[in-house]
Amino acid sequence: MASFNALVMKRLGVYCSGGDAPGMNAAIRAVVRTAIVNKLEVVGFVGGYSGIHDNKHLSLDLRSVANIIQRGGSILKAGRSPEFMQAEGRKKAADNIKANGIDALVCIGGDGSFTGAHTLWNEHKIPVVGVPGTIDNDILGSDDTIGFDTAVNTALDAIDRIRDTAASHDRLFIVEVMGRDSGFIAIAAGVAGGAEDIFIPEHPFQLEKTIEIIKRGMARGKTSSILVTAEGQKPGRAYDLAEAIRKHAGLQAKVCILGHIQRGGSPTANDRILASRMGMTAVQLLLNGSCDIMVGSQGESLVMIGFADALKSKKQVNQPLIELAQVLSN
Amino acid sequence: MASFNALVMKRLGVYCSGGDAPGMNAAIRAVVRTAIVNKLEVVGFVGGYSGIHDNKHLSLDLRSVANIIQRGGSILKAGRSPEFMQAEGRKKAADNIKANGIDALVCIGGDGSFTGAHTLWNEHKIPVVGVPGTIDNDILGSDDTIGFDTAVNTALDAIDRIRDTAASHDRLFIVEVMGRDSGFIAIAAGVAGGAEDIFIPEHPFQLEKTIEIIKRGMARGKTSSILVTAEGQKPGRAYDLAEAIRKHAGLQAKVCILGHIQRGGSPTANDRILASRMGMTAVQLLLNGSCDIMVGSQGESLVMIGFADALKSKKQVNQPLIELAQVLSN
Amino acid sequence: MASFNALVMKRLGVYCSGGDAPGMNAAIRAVVRTAIVNKLEVVGFVGGYSGIHDNKHLSLDLRSVANIIQRGGSILKAGRSPEFMQAEGRKKAADNIKANGIDALVCIGGDGSFTGAHTLWNEHKIPVVGVPGTIDNDILGSDDTIGFDTAVNTALDAIDRIRDTAASHDRLFIVEVMGRDSGFIAIAAGVAGGAEDIFIPEHPFQLEKTIEIIKRGMARGKTSSILVTAEGQKPGRAYDLAEAIRKHAGLQAKVCILGHIQRGGSPTANDRILASRMGMTAVQLLLNGSCDIMVGSQGESLVMIGFADALKSKKQVNQPLIELAQVLSN
Amino acid sequence: MASFNALVMKRLGVYCSGGDAPGMNAAIRAVVRTAIVNKLEVVGFVGGYSGIHDNKHLSLDLRSVANIIQRGGSILKAGRSPEFMQAEGRKKAADNIKANGIDALVCIGGDGSFTGAHTLWNEHKIPVVGVPGTIDNDILGSDDTIGFDTAVNTALDAIDRIRDTAASHDRLFIVEVMGRDSGFIAIAAGVAGGAEDIFIPEHPFQLEKTIEIIKRGMARGKTSSILVTAEGQKPGRAYDLAEAIRKHAGLQAKVCILGHIQRGGSPTANDRILASRMGMTAVQLLLNGSCDIMVGSQGESLVMIGFADALKSKKQVNQPLIELAQVLSN
Repeated sequence: MASFNALVMKRLGVYCSGGDAPGMNAAIRAVVRTAIVNKLEVVGFVGGYSGIHDNKHLSLDLRSVANIIQRGGSILKAGRSPEFMQAEGRKKAADNIKANGIDALVCIGGDGSFTGAHTLWNEHKIPVVGVPGTIDNDILGSDDTIGFDTAVNTALDAIDRIRDTAASHDRLFIVEVMGRDSGFIAIAAGVAGGAEDIFIPEHPFQLEKTIEIIKRGMARGKTSSILVTAEGQKPGRAYDLAEAIRKHAGLQAKVCILGHIQRGGSPTANDRILASRMGMTAVQLLLNGSCDIMVGSQGESLVMIGFADALKSKKQVNQPLIELAQVLSN
Repeated sequence: MASFNALVMKRLGVYCSGGDAPGMNAAIRAVVRTAIVNKLEVVGFVGGYSGIHDNKHLSLDLRSVANIIQRGGSILKAGRSPEFMQAEGRKKAADNIKANGIDALVCIGGDGSFTGAHTLWNEHKIPVVGVPGTIDNDILGSDDTIGFDTAVNTALDAIDRIRDTAASHDRLFIVEVMGRDSGFIAIAAGVAGGAEDIFIPEHPFQLEKTIEIIKRGMARGKTSSILVTAEGQKPGRAYDLAEAIRKHAGLQAKVCILGHIQRGGSPTANDRILASRMGMTAVQLLLNGSCDIMVGSQGESLVMIGFADALKSKKQVNQPLIELAQVLSN
Repeated sequence: MASFNALVMKRLGVYCSGGDAPGMNAAIRAVVRTAIVNKLEVVGFVGGYSGIHDNKHLSLDLRSVANIIQRGGSILKAGRSPEFMQAEGRKKAADNIKANGIDALVCIGGDGSFTGAHTLWNEHKIPVVGVPGTIDNDILGSDDTIGFDTAVNTALDAIDRIRDTAASHDRLFIVEVMGRDSGFIAIAAGVAGGAEDIFIPEHPFQLEKTIEIIKRGMARGKTSSILVTAEGQKPGRAYDLAEAIRKHAGLQAKVCILGHIQRGGSPTANDRILASRMGMTAVQLLLNGSCDIMVGSQGESLVMIGFADALKSKKQVNQPLIELAQVLSN
Repeated sequence: MASFNALVMKRLGVYCSGGDAPGMNAAIRAVVRTAIVNKLEVVGFVGGYSGIHDNKHLSLDLRSVANIIQRGGSILKAGRSPEFMQAEGRKKAADNIKANGIDALVCIGGDGSFTGAHTLWNEHKIPVVGVPGTIDNDILGSDDTIGFDTAVNTALDAIDRIRDTAASHDRLFIVEVMGRDSGFIAIAAGVAGGAEDIFIPEHPFQLEKTIEIIKRGMARGKTSSILVTAEGQKPGRAYDLAEAIRKHAGLQAKVCILGHIQRGGSPTANDRILASRMGMTAVQLLLNGSCDIMVGSQGESLVMIGFADALKSKKQVNQPLIELAQVLSN
């Protein structure tokens, strides 16, 4: 956490970075509206750090953010920037920010994006406040990130549909959800979907236990099962799991990789509200002269976390949910 | 909060009471599964306190709760009981509970239901643990109640649809949501739906401000607006509001009362997970000999709250959300 | 049906009129894209006949219609025009059309809109082709109108939700759907929702039969029922029905008026495809020099119907669906 | 088409066969209700021809089919039967049908299922009427099959979500939908989803044209595209397409295979109505002594088609939709 002289602040920049997440538009809307209420001008960079580097921006007013709270994706696009990984690229980005008369930034994104924002402060004293927007929910210091709730409900809707057909055909399904090396989506969608077992990257496969659960279910007349797995480092983990189950238990599993549908769609109420609160708070923090921090949600409150602290490690899946999954799948 | 001798506990009862809420089935499932894992038998009373009074019950096993986690409504039905308001009726209910060999109960419902459960302990030493299930989210001691998230998303989907037609016709709409004398659904659906103003029972109408917001929007080219109001003590408040706006500002508003669609539908991921956690925890608390309490959610944790404390007053709508609504509607 | 010299056609106008309907944007997109492929310019009038009368228009290109196929409402708005009811107003509208160099028009709307279009041809020789867009599905000569499928599915989703709570509380519900004096939405949503009885404006209430159906259901253990009624000439018919049932059978019914949610929302696949086909065909008909007609769907084909024929009378609800409703509700 | 003596008919059998499809439950409900109104008993075989072969059945009454019209999957399950491919297995099945006193059958399924039904009549004079239930919509003689509309809307919802993220990241996506060697789902979901190009098994890839469309779009500022492809004989065609595009145009495409989510979910209004009409009609045809036929939908009418005619060849994708796709994607 750091502070800067916010008294002279006249113009704010905002951008989305990393993977897109439903609710980013609601966050942009809240940033713009709060800024305008506080007599600030707002500039949006298009495409994240690339947009800053390439000086692609547009000015944002109340009309720009009308009727976007319900839209998936991001009107400012999102993305990753190889140039920004280099000191030279960051120098160019910082020069653009200053040349545009932008006094401070709101960054909507995940841990990679916050690393960039932290560096912008360290190297160029550009004040940034972060708003955690990622479906993966893996940001230390925030119970929830923007987009997570929508992604979980999208995955859940798919699991509900798959259960219909699984039950009609006495089948074993393996559903792979997103989350990279984080198991948040898997554990939430799996518990909510009544999955027979859930595989998260944080834990090794425990095939014996899984197979026992499936066979115990069969013994009492259950004929279909759904396993949910996080994708892990790259999509396709479900195929390995299907192969292992075939080998160990002679059971054929059908694989369903949900993929990018989990990134889109109109955001849920929770994601819109979280995004609105966080966007507003980010601007208020900048108005107070706070920077090099992100906004986090803890219980019903919003808190601020230094980027340095938030980036120290990855957030872990809550143990109680793991236990819940174990009790209920029996 | 009180305690009882749980060592001899063999048979558990479960019932839903008051208005139904999406996620009640997920809670029943969690109660049954957790009980069975712990070698308890489970009996479900049908129709809440009426069912206890009339001795309408059925035995619940793993098959009874298969494939219900995604269903709206309640397989045990819900309802209110006039007989149970009388000491005599409660005596009859307590006798039925004992005659069925039921050692303890899980009550899924709202404040009226918990008042009944608290009385059962006081008058007849029947141990009950409560699980807050009501779309109104008005239970002191719990950030969220089962069904609230689903009801808000249902209301939000309706608001999104109404905005389509409002924008196509340059119209002013007043959308009335449920919540009785609580403004939780209104404030959440209103903020998430980008409503121009939100009316909650906790506050008087501030028509001047509302009309100013609408006119300011018109001045900058906005041609349609949506106001969201809680129903208040009885449905129909939206009509009074429409009439007041017509009188004070000469504006015609169309009224849309969302009504009972908000009680139904497949529960959201959040509601299923909350219900599953609370149902499991309720049984675990009974196994520990705790009773005359309800399970509450606070942040990411579950806590226990004595019925007496939970029933002391109504939960108030969070001030930050009200402020958020004010900033973003400007 | 009439014909005009289409060889000199260079600029096309398009507008939406009457109530808005989901899928109108898909129709606009198809009109614009087909026109551009055929080297025509396109102008959109905003707000229907009012927009023509007040000369409110914008030019439309491929970018204008990108990413709108999935949106509810209409980017050109819709609406009714009192001025256009007068010969003088129509004269002014015709003058505007000519002054803008517009050679022909596509009108997306219902029977009121087509009456206007027919008059434009008769009085001022403005060539118009109509595309039936109304949720009411009451246009003679077309099996389906744009928006009907979406409205029915929205109503159905509401009925499904209401059934959850009806079944949990052993209740009788009356659900009022849109359709003005046409029973298409009521019969479709009622049959699909498994309603116990359906009331359409084309038929008088047959309360004795309805009450008998409900009582017969009760006799075999059914405790909840849903009746679906069309709104009739104005919203509120459901209250009359509830009162009649209370009087004749002593049964209390809860009323739910779905209202304007039925006009909004992302269009279904059927509505988007129908709108796309009809929009494309309307332009092709104009290119062939045909006018004073609307496009109709009959089976899997599109046909053309003279406005005069389409406006002769109202389309009647299909008798087979009424019989189906009677057999299945028994 | 054939006829049998229906005067002595007392007991009807019903089964689902092949892949399951949303709306099968609505068809079962209509069969049961229509049969009971006509004083027939109904028996359901579980798991299609396997269930007949293994004599797994249950008796169905009004309560069995209450509250199922809105459910995906099939309460009678579905499936394929290797035993039934052999004359011996069919003999055993026919014996079971007769031993259970079943006079006639309703078969809900696709062309494989109807081949079996046709053989049952030819070899054993078991009267069967078919109801086309398959998401693939590939049955000659019926405009629509039960489940197709739901599957298309599920695929469309996924495409809408993917477009959000495609647009936020300037990406090219290839979405693979179901339909085996039929392109119906692909063409419908692709047109409704505004796909830049659609690949169906009936046509060879025309990569040059596709790449030209994408590049033309890029040239006018479009940065994201979605291609939709049918799966073809087996899932995975999308990967071949991605590889071909990479090779020919140097474009990286992301692949999303929608898979089994397309088989599940609550059926749309259209599928429920079609299923209800067809189920009722199938029983009425049997009551008239007609058999060895299926019910087909043509326009707004239901017709009967001899199994022999329906099985002659595959239904072809409508040419107008293909042309529509070409005009609108330009």
